[in-house]
Amino acid sequence: MMHGGSIRGILLLGTLALSALIQSPSANAQTQRQLSLMPWPSSVQQGSGELRIDATFSVALTGHTEARLDHSVARFLKMLNRETAIPMFAKAPAAGGKATLTIHTDHASKEVQELGEDESYTLEVTADGAKLNAATPLGTMHGLQTFLQLVEPGVNGFDVPVVTIHDQPRFPWRGLMFDVGRHFIPLDVLRRNVDGMEAVKMNVFHWHLSENQGFRIESKKFPKLQELGSDGLYYTQDEVRDFIAYARERGIRVVPEFDMPGHSTAWFVGYPELASAPGPYQIERKWGVMDPAMDPTNEKTYKFLDEFIGEMAKVFPDHYFHVGGDEVNGKQWDGNQKIQEFKKTHNIKDNKELQAYFSQRVQQLVTKHGKAVVGWDEVFIPGVPKDIVIQSWRGQASLAEAASQGYRGILSNGYYIDLGWSAARHYAVDPMGGAAANLTPEQQKLILGGEATMWSEYVNAENMDSRVWPRSAAIAERLWSPQSVTDVASMYARMNAESARLELSGLTHRTYYRSMLQRIAGAASPDEFEALKTVADVVEPVKDYNREQMAPAEPTSLTPLNRVVDAVPLESDKAREFGELVDKFLASSCKDADAAARLRAQFIIWRDNDAKLLPLEQRSFLVKEIGQVSQNLSALGVAGLAALDYIAKGTAAPADWKASQTAAITQLQAPRAQLLLVPTGAVQKLVDAASAGGSCAK
Amino acid sequence: MMHGGSIRGILLLGTLALSALIQSPSANAQTQRQLSLMPWPSSVQQGSGELRIDATFSVALTGHTEARLDHSVARFLKMLNRETAIPMFAKAPAAGGKATLTIHTDHASKEVQELGEDESYTLEVTADGAKLNAATPLGTMHGLQTFLQLVEPGVNGFDVPVVTIHDQPRFPWRGLMFDVGRHFIPLDVLRRNVDGMEAVKMNVFHWHLSENQGFRIESKKFPKLQELGSDGLYYTQDEVRDFIAYARERGIRVVPEFDMPGHSTAWFVGYPELASAPGPYQIERKWGVMDPAMDPTNEKTYKFLDEFIGEMAKVFPDHYFHVGGDEVNGKQWDGNQKIQEFKKTHNIKDNKELQAYFSQRVQQLVTKHGKAVVGWDEVFIPGVPKDIVIQSWRGQASLAEAASQGYRGILSNGYYIDLGWSAARHYAVDPMGGAAANLTPEQQKLILGGEATMWSEYVNAENMDSRVWPRSAAIAERLWSPQSVTDVASMYARMNAESARLELSGLTHRTYYRSMLQRIAGAASPDEFEALKTVADVVEPVKDYNREQMAPAEPTSLTPLNRVVDAVPLESDKAREFGELVDKFLASSCKDADAAARLRAQFIIWRDNDAKLLPLEQRSFLVKEIGQVSQNLSALGVAGLAALDYIAKGTAAPADWKASQTAAITQLQAPRAQLLLVPTGAVQKLVDAASAGGSCAK
Repeated sequence: MMHGGSIRGILLLGTLALSALIQSPSANAQTQRQLSLMPWPSSVQQGSGELRIDATFSVALTGHTEARLDHSVARFLKMLNRETAIPMFAKAPAAGGKATLTIHTDHASKEVQELGEDESYTLEVTADGAKLNAATPLGTMHGLQTFLQLVEPGVNGFDVPVVTIHDQPRFPWRGLMFDVGRHFIPLDVLRRNVDGMEAVKMNVFHWHLSENQGFRIESKKFPKLQELGSDGLYYTQDEVRDFIAYARERGIRVVPEFDMPGHSTAWFVGYPELASAPGPYQIERKWGVMDPAMDPTNEKTYKFLDEFIGEMAKVFPDHYFHVGGDEVNGKQWDGNQKIQEFKKTHNIKDNKELQAYFSQRVQQLVTKHGKAVVGWDEVFIPGVPKDIVIQSWRGQASLAEAASQGYRGILSNGYYIDLGWSAARHYAVDPMGGAAANLTPEQQKLILGGEATMWSEYVNAENMDSRVWPRSAAIAERLWSPQSVTDVASMYARMNAESARLELSGLTHRTYYRSMLQRIAGAASPDEFEALKTVADVVEPVKDYNREQMAPAEPTSLTPLNRVVDAVPLESDKAREFGELVDKFLASSCKDADAAARLRAQFIIWRDNDAKLLPLEQRSFLVKEIGQVSQNLSALGVAGLAALDYIAKGTAAPADWKASQTAAITQLQAPRAQLLLVPTGAVQKLVDAASAGGSCAK
Repeated sequence: MMHGGSIRGILLLGTLALSALIQSPSANAQTQRQLSLMPWPSSVQQGSGELRIDATFSVALTGHTEARLDHSVARFLKMLNRETAIPMFAKAPAAGGKATLTIHTDHASKEVQELGEDESYTLEVTADGAKLNAATPLGTMHGLQTFLQLVEPGVNGFDVPVVTIHDQPRFPWRGLMFDVGRHFIPLDVLRRNVDGMEAVKMNVFHWHLSENQGFRIESKKFPKLQELGSDGLYYTQDEVRDFIAYARERGIRVVPEFDMPGHSTAWFVGYPELASAPGPYQIERKWGVMDPAMDPTNEKTYKFLDEFIGEMAKVFPDHYFHVGGDEVNGKQWDGNQKIQEFKKTHNIKDNKELQAYFSQRVQQLVTKHGKAVVGWDEVFIPGVPKDIVIQSWRGQASLAEAASQGYRGILSNGYYIDLGWSAARHYAVDPMGGAAANLTPEQQKLILGGEATMWSEYVNAENMDSRVWPRSAAIAERLWSPQSVTDVASMYARMNAESARLELSGLTHRTYYRSMLQRIAGAASPDEFEALKTVADVVEPVKDYNREQMAPAEPTSLTPLNRVVDAVPLESDKAREFGELVDKFLASSCKDADAAARLRAQFIIWRDNDAKLLPLEQRSFLVKEIGQVSQNLSALGVAGLAALDYIAKGTAAPADWKASQTAAITQLQAPRAQLLLVPTGAVQKLVDAASAGGSCAK
């Protein structure tokens, strides 16, 4: 069994030793393969030998049967074919023969997937065959994904190592929220993201369907919602039903969100009477918290919402119904005399209480239509019914506060994947961390899990996959695996392997990049293109909400997402690998000659790169924008070479050199074109090491 | 106007100078942009200035209207959006305003697209707007593609340079044949290839639908054809009709091919009575020329074919119907007593004459159903009707022979894109070359054009795009552009740009590569993956039919296409660029210090690469297979460094050194794992230059 304790215990052994050990508590560690499972299962016991995967591979389903299981096996075989390129034709075992993989599912899961169903499974692989056992189809589907993650090209062919896995999730709510309001995202993009969710065992697709910038689903009762509020970019109800079925086939619930009373300008284009100020309204193009909000004092608002929620409650079978509730600035309320009078009459002292009143009324409607409410922190008002679920953008303290009063919650603070954090940073966030750690066991059960949130100000169909993947796999592991699984180096190694598999499954989170760079480069020569890529490879968009503040012009939903900042991944693999190389070099007290040579080669490439990019910079406005970044990278190369020269000479660099280099690098750290030059920190480490008193100075 | 004469005239100026000049016969060459048009139009006159592309872009259609033109504009705007990422919403010009692009189409084209329709267009771009004029929608569609090729990121935004283009094709038949018999290719793959064909103005999709290995279309009259002959992998008639409509919307004719009397084993699985030897038959899994052939002496064969051709003639509206006719080895005929007697009775002296008899009968059936026959060289039999079209796998002499007797033909010899030739080699083949050059002008008109042929022994849905593109663009140019357009450096520069656009349009010819390498690498570290890629980047599959001969085990249609030889492109960009760098260095008499430094850096990477790949080689059988190739690449790096050292020292390398290096490099040139190490020739040049008597030896 692999336990987190053992992972932590070997943290000091360094990446290489660790990756060999992490999978292998048994004696013959060196002969065993690293398993690139993600999320890491609750128990893994590796044996010796392997099961060969070839064209005779077959599957048998026993126990409970249903069409969904057959489809799962068909998809499993399709993916097994993608992983191996081995033709997988007829899949029943030959007459009288034994199947390579025998699946036993004990009983059905609920007709409409519910929170907290049994998702456990056991997978036992021997050299002769494999057995997958699960209580329900949900566990079976998870086990099939685990099997797919075990397939590797081995010494004599594709195989799966001998292993016994017992697995179940830590949290029952493992979600990913897609904001299709700010930028419309077509269904094929969403479907391949659902495939990605299945691969990493996430189970809630949270569909943020309405925003100031767009209302994205067909209402038959109120057709002006989509007709006037979507630029024609919305999903029909038939498409939505198909999509829900698609998700269910993958063990994933679909929770719709209709954000109210704020974030609702798009509703008012067709139905201005819902708003707290007279219209007419236009679809909002700008980002941010806007004034328009529903009128919480008008009974017509609730009549409308009653019918609307009733309609949508029929489209979405899930028990949970998200009503948003975040970020109302109250300006329209303050400016409306009728609303002011209502507050006085009803003894409502401020807008927070007014929103609480609205929230309570909406919750009653949701309950009336047979659903339970999910909402952002703001919907948690003392006295609301206990069946609500609070989605916290504020953090664990907020969740803990709710749990201590008997309310359930899911964590999203720390999982905002639009903010550009590293996978490691998201990975370090635990729903049971902070204040939640002090809850009683009974209260802790109220913390259901978490959700990554893909807000889409700077995300569209082209780059969405890259904003979601592979970092969401790290969050998925946090929500599935034992709390003790925390080793970052192991996470990155496994995430890297999973990322490759996700690409095989159809996601474009890595392939989109070259295509977007090509648009930026135009008809560049191969050398120019390479020079552009050299810069792009080691920069990241500015983090958190800084992009908004550093925008060259006010961005809108119509601004083309065609700049370098839109093209580069939010976390640079190359920069991380470079940082690891620097750390390795420093850990050797600068004696690792191979690392030194590789660093030097890298610095020379950076130093010389700006001159190569220059001609393209002069032709393309999109390259010109990063001219300063390119110059900075060259300067960083020069600084790195100077540090290596001191280290090679064995002379400690003087204090004034260190001071001037440090000042220069600090300047290079300033964002340019909304981009951060990531390797500056690692080069600073070399400068420090080369200087008097530094670890590599003599 | 750009003329071939001027291209040839500046061939000696070197790549850089040339690429600046080729587009710009006018005075202000340095301020003008290189145009990456492909195929190059018959006349291009570039002006100064440019037309800005922004969100106000609009299109007006005048003259003849039809739905196909509206769809073309919609697709044009979609692609314009992909090229720029600028949202393109409503596209009519603002009320009273002038459209950015005004299109005038004079009249309709034929309801069923015919050979030789007017495909010409004129495109005039000024800083104020653009005008596209064409006689028919075919010309309009071509002009829209030309416009898309002109869009570039400019100094202040995306734009199109001021230019006037008059264009029409040199040949009316510009085809691409897809063999879906040997490996089934799904329709989505074919559709994106049709998009690629449209982009480079090809106009015939030749669908090779039946083979020994599979019968790929639904017959309602003879359903056992697809039921027993396809492994379930076939197109329904509805799908085929949709596909034909899809192609027509892009100005592309669809010509079906049913290969007979040979290459027909898959027919006999369901209908053994058609064959010349008793069954039963199985779907053939092996490659090559097989014995089974239809019985040309049995009237039931013709009755069957009459009904079958009649059925298919209704499915495919094109006037041309391909009946194959190639590669009958005659063994089944020789072994059949009844057939031998028939030959005697009918005074048929050999199997060639017997096939001619069959061919004549089939041609009568095709004619009866209102179609004209296309067939491989073998169908050209003295006395056949003049409306046949001969597709020549034999070459220009064969076409010239037919033309001299008044028969029409298209060239495929030299355009077999499965053979792994470079784009340059295909580009050098001209349908009017060789014996065809001596035809009279009247006879030359009988040479209708040519077809690239994508035979699919080693091609499947995953790597097909990469086998077709971008090299087919060079063939498309050969068939469209004036005969005088022949500069190879210009072709590669423009093909590279077109390749990037084809990727934006949805083709996977470049993105598939990393994905296939990842399968080979499994859960490799980033360094290991990079080492694998370093080898894969500079190898190519062995050429012509050598792959067959060097197979480790007899390949079949069920053999997984998962090896390095299946993953690497057929022409290595990196190796070509390396060769160009060596040439540049040598052209400077080895004085170009930047080139020397880049060569040295490359050789060091190669030299050190094998050690980095070794751990992966020990884990993955697919990497192990290229172990020797990897060692060879390292050896090549060592040889290159030694040559550079001599050159740097200014000492001529001794003769025995040259001899030993040459011998070593010759060994490195031997194929391994069916792969060629491409840069060996360029390194040999360095060795020669470094040696006594060499160009860089002192």
